[in-house]
Amino acid sequence: MADPKIEEVLAPFRASVKEQGDIVRQLKESGALELDLKKAVAELKARKKILEDKELELAPVEASFDRAKMEDLLKRRFFFDQSFAIYGGITGQFDFGPMGCAMKANMLSTWRNFFILEEQMLEVDCSILTPEPVLKASGHVDRFADLMVKDEKNGECFRLDHLIKAHLEKVKSDKKTTSEVKLECEDIVVKLDGMNKEEMRVILRKFEMKAPLTNNELSDPMEFNLMFSTYIGPTGLVKGFLRPETAQGIFVNFKRLLEFNQEKLPFAAAQIGNSFRNEISPRSGLIRVREFTMAEIEHFCDPTDKSHPKFSEVRDVQVLLYSACNQMDGKAAEIVTIGKAVDDKIIANETLAYFMARIQQYMVKVGVDTRKLRFRQHMNNEMAHYACDCWDAECLTSYGWVECVGCADRSAYDLSQHTKSTGVRLVAERKLREPKTIDVVEAVANKGIVGKSFKKEAKEIMEALSKLEPSTVAEVEESLKNNGKYVLAIGANSYVLTPDMLEVKRYQKTIYVEEYVPNVIEPSFGIGRIMYSIFEHNFKVRSDGGQRTYFSLPPVIAPLKCSVLPLSNNADFVPYIRQLSRDLTALDVSNRVDDSSGSIGRRYARTDEIAIPFGITIDFDSLKEPHTATLRERDSMGQVRIPLKEIAGVVRDLSYDKMTWTDVEAKYPKFEQQETKT
Amino acid sequence: MADPKIEEVLAPFRASVKEQGDIVRQLKESGALELDLKKAVAELKARKKILEDKELELAPVEASFDRAKMEDLLKRRFFFDQSFAIYGGITGQFDFGPMGCAMKANMLSTWRNFFILEEQMLEVDCSILTPEPVLKASGHVDRFADLMVKDEKNGECFRLDHLIKAHLEKVKSDKKTTSEVKLECEDIVVKLDGMNKEEMRVILRKFEMKAPLTNNELSDPMEFNLMFSTYIGPTGLVKGFLRPETAQGIFVNFKRLLEFNQEKLPFAAAQIGNSFRNEISPRSGLIRVREFTMAEIEHFCDPTDKSHPKFSEVRDVQVLLYSACNQMDGKAAEIVTIGKAVDDKIIANETLAYFMARIQQYMVKVGVDTRKLRFRQHMNNEMAHYACDCWDAECLTSYGWVECVGCADRSAYDLSQHTKSTGVRLVAERKLREPKTIDVVEAVANKGIVGKSFKKEAKEIMEALSKLEPSTVAEVEESLKNNGKYVLAIGANSYVLTPDMLEVKRYQKTIYVEEYVPNVIEPSFGIGRIMYSIFEHNFKVRSDGGQRTYFSLPPVIAPLKCSVLPLSNNADFVPYIRQLSRDLTALDVSNRVDDSSGSIGRRYARTDEIAIPFGITIDFDSLKEPHTATLRERDSMGQVRIPLKEIAGVVRDLSYDKMTWTDVEAKYPKFEQQETKT
Repeated sequence: MADPKIEEVLAPFRASVKEQGDIVRQLKESGALELDLKKAVAELKARKKILEDKELELAPVEASFDRAKMEDLLKRRFFFDQSFAIYGGITGQFDFGPMGCAMKANMLSTWRNFFILEEQMLEVDCSILTPEPVLKASGHVDRFADLMVKDEKNGECFRLDHLIKAHLEKVKSDKKTTSEVKLECEDIVVKLDGMNKEEMRVILRKFEMKAPLTNNELSDPMEFNLMFSTYIGPTGLVKGFLRPETAQGIFVNFKRLLEFNQEKLPFAAAQIGNSFRNEISPRSGLIRVREFTMAEIEHFCDPTDKSHPKFSEVRDVQVLLYSACNQMDGKAAEIVTIGKAVDDKIIANETLAYFMARIQQYMVKVGVDTRKLRFRQHMNNEMAHYACDCWDAECLTSYGWVECVGCADRSAYDLSQHTKSTGVRLVAERKLREPKTIDVVEAVANKGIVGKSFKKEAKEIMEALSKLEPSTVAEVEESLKNNGKYVLAIGANSYVLTPDMLEVKRYQKTIYVEEYVPNVIEPSFGIGRIMYSIFEHNFKVRSDGGQRTYFSLPPVIAPLKCSVLPLSNNADFVPYIRQLSRDLTALDVSNRVDDSSGSIGRRYARTDEIAIPFGITIDFDSLKEPHTATLRERDSMGQVRIPLKEIAGVVRDLSYDKMTWTDVEAKYPKFEQQETKT
Repeated sequence: MADPKIEEVLAPFRASVKEQGDIVRQLKESGALELDLKKAVAELKARKKILEDKELELAPVEASFDRAKMEDLLKRRFFFDQSFAIYGGITGQFDFGPMGCAMKANMLSTWRNFFILEEQMLEVDCSILTPEPVLKASGHVDRFADLMVKDEKNGECFRLDHLIKAHLEKVKSDKKTTSEVKLECEDIVVKLDGMNKEEMRVILRKFEMKAPLTNNELSDPMEFNLMFSTYIGPTGLVKGFLRPETAQGIFVNFKRLLEFNQEKLPFAAAQIGNSFRNEISPRSGLIRVREFTMAEIEHFCDPTDKSHPKFSEVRDVQVLLYSACNQMDGKAAEIVTIGKAVDDKIIANETLAYFMARIQQYMVKVGVDTRKLRFRQHMNNEMAHYACDCWDAECLTSYGWVECVGCADRSAYDLSQHTKSTGVRLVAERKLREPKTIDVVEAVANKGIVGKSFKKEAKEIMEALSKLEPSTVAEVEESLKNNGKYVLAIGANSYVLTPDMLEVKRYQKTIYVEEYVPNVIEPSFGIGRIMYSIFEHNFKVRSDGGQRTYFSLPPVIAPLKCSVLPLSNNADFVPYIRQLSRDLTALDVSNRVDDSSGSIGRRYARTDEIAIPFGITIDFDSLKEPHTATLRERDSMGQVRIPLKEIAGVVRDLSYDKMTWTDVEAKYPKFEQQETKT
């Protein structure tokens, strides 16, 4: 991989990262103050960013990519476009047209086969509208926020980091700015990501930033929660949010799923569905949007055993890993096998590693370029509050490396949180190797007396007594003995218990199982981002003049598998065209007849644009015995002549990966006329 | 169909409906006051309801249906259950567990093949969050509301019609109530559906109704809009709603879709997705919910030609039609062919009728019982504001006839509304039979002078001028001549134009096309309601004792196609079980291994409960040459013995309707041991 000349240029940048990485390590080891550590990490990230930009700058250019040209094609052939455009449009919302929608549906059905069917996962489909307490427990109500400032006069809002960055770029490009200030600006921009609210406020005021268009004063930075809120039901009393991720729906159903799985662990549940984030100022097309489709897996397992039964099947899969260690050391990402990464403890456990291999296999299957796919490990300090190890599958695009799939070990965080909030024990049981004898201390209520004394509340009191911890039971016992009573608190109420109301029992019990909170490994796919990467990785320009563009999507996700074209609008072609379309549909091969005027070459170009991999042309020879037609392949533009009776089956086999184009070219005669340009 | 004895009982009820139906007709013909007409219609509906209840009461009972038993099974095996139950749950929201989710996914993929692929529709996937102006134009902001009252003290809300009904039932069952009042109560209950806000208010006050639990005073009735509202973006200035239907996303994309279809009509667009309605007090399980999946088709066509090219294919399909006419005449629904219904003008046009036939075919394919499916036509007065003909596909369930699919001719309503609101002309062009010569009157701006005079606004002014209607151009011309100026208003601004600024041109033009607003035929599927009907229509109890229940779902929508069972936990079975599961998966046959303890009969019962149609058992004979296994069919409990090598293929063919169980029984030897009960 590494080009010595390029490495020579990069060497000082790598050294600079490593220097700072070592400082961070030392600070951690010496137990430095958190503030000092944070500053050092911010500096580390800044240096990493400079290194990464340099790496990208020096990477060999394989072909010039013209984003505007691709976006034009996507819009023109309605793969997707801005929602509600005739009403002025809303940023961060997109509608998928026929081609985008079919491609997305194919990506999802491939995903369903690849993960859910293949691994026998339990798929669920949960509510989008989520009541507040659920997202309070998950941490989203308190922590899922970005910083923004408001135009004091018209209320317009700006995402703070974007605003600062844009302002400093402007300052930098001003001729009057001194080189000293320019350097300061550069320094701030690279460190911006790691800054907190107060640090950003200081910069905002120091540079006297104003609202971009109006030049009005700006408010102090404030946190803006990224969830859309609404009220469920008519009273206005039940606050709810549109879910920001699909995962929580799985966690709150954990007990039902465990029961469905006959109480056995490990098992994985999965969900495909929409999530919502009220971005402050969305941009970058499909990459940062307000409404998006996710596909998430929650693999529940025993924390003491994160091995995976099918690990041997992926042991030799090669992945490009950018470990936390390499990031600290200023080293490049490295290609290693999944097996070695686990052996060397680069990836924390087999299950996490198994899913990383499967993620890569899926991504490649749907059209991601392996050379533009890497797994980047989160460094300690950037890990979400719930995770204990996390790798992002990132795709290289014209926006840089974009996180498309997260693969996190969320440990016991979520189940513990929901247990805490609801009192419902979200746990599993494991058999003990040997039965264990334990001492039991219980407060057993005298039902008759408690019932008589407390009436309606009796049930609640007896339940509370049965759940007391051993240490509390001892307290109760002592208080009853010494004070002749014990005051039991339940919520805001308290009840005076007297010695006749309960008995403390002590005995030994043999137990065969113990409870534990399962851990969760979560691969989480952002479908829109993967889709965007696929578009970039498969956008092609024909070498003959550069005007003809197309997407070389793999047949499995191509929106339509086959086009059916009459050579001209001659009426004799019509019955053949109809029959062929019907034959293809009967074999589940999606197809589109293009009987518009225009030369065959021009119509091929049209079908290439919407990524149709195979095209059948009915011409005058098709009308004669033996009936045949031309089959054309999009990427190579190669053509063969096939008997009409066989052609639908051949396209089906090509579309579902049961046959390759090379097989077809070997079996049928080449055809070389027809495709003339207009 | 009709049983003479039953018809004898029903005769007076039918006559009573007809009597009122005739009154309504006469009132309409004589152009009666709307209020009088409304009252007469309310009475008609009341009589219809009595007739219908009587019909259902007298219908031959085929088997006793135990809803509680079915609901227990649905919950126990987690087909679906209340969302967020560990947090207390929210009414009207449900989570689909593995079996419900797989069944729903199968229903949708069947739908996609049956409609989108088969009819080459343009599928789209649009945003759920919708800005207010879009739903203002569609009529939802103003009209999509239910009546409710509030508990004056604690703010609890009640849907008014539900509240009145429950209260009057209570009054009726009170021994102290006079028979006169009892009759009044009955009368009100049947007429409730047709009452307006004021009529309901009078009843509320007359019977001095209070809040059910608290006995607090109730507010006057108020309209409650059923859309969930939120704000898009951080400013709190852009109001949005969760879409109440998927249709609007298609309408606002009409121009893009027309362009994608190369400007040709007719074409159909389709969308599968979630919609949201903030029901005041949801109940009846999956039938009335706050979040639901819809599948909608919008077929755009020329209003002067609603024929359908594939109509001949469905001409002979028989449907059970309950026409508006029959409803007015107190007649029963009738079985007729689709062709005759169009010939007799019962169904308005071929396209509407074509879709009704296709709806029925789909419903039957996914498991709806044809005998419990009818199409009910909306009567004039109950038609939505946008529709000009509308038929509901209704399924008979234990809740009565439930609307599952609407099939409406929405005419040009939606496209016209959005054109009005945006100024973007949502129209298509049709070729004129003969070219037409028309007179053109245009106000042509003098660009130089207008530009100089109005600077920035010049462009807008010139655009406004070019769009003036001929009559306005004449006004402009006169004003310039008589007053030496014309005041042009654009929005809130006005501009003084002088004679030098424009010239009025008159000439003739030959046109070959004319613009028109396409009409829309809309089949709209409520997936959850269809699913619920399928559950009811397929819930079975084995005749042997009545404890064993199961769902006889057609293989195409069964959550899993096949179970794989080892006869016992003998280790020798393991490799065979694994290989078989792998073989099935490779053929896209979803399957589940049940290697839990329990007799084979008990495990079959478990797989029957989750509707798995086929089960393979590996027993000791399977280990010997020639390797064979048992294949069992769920509904008949028949078993055959099949060579291991062939079995996966056979199950694939059975699952995808390429082979029937009768074929299998004819081909392979019967097997008669094994299934012992526990």
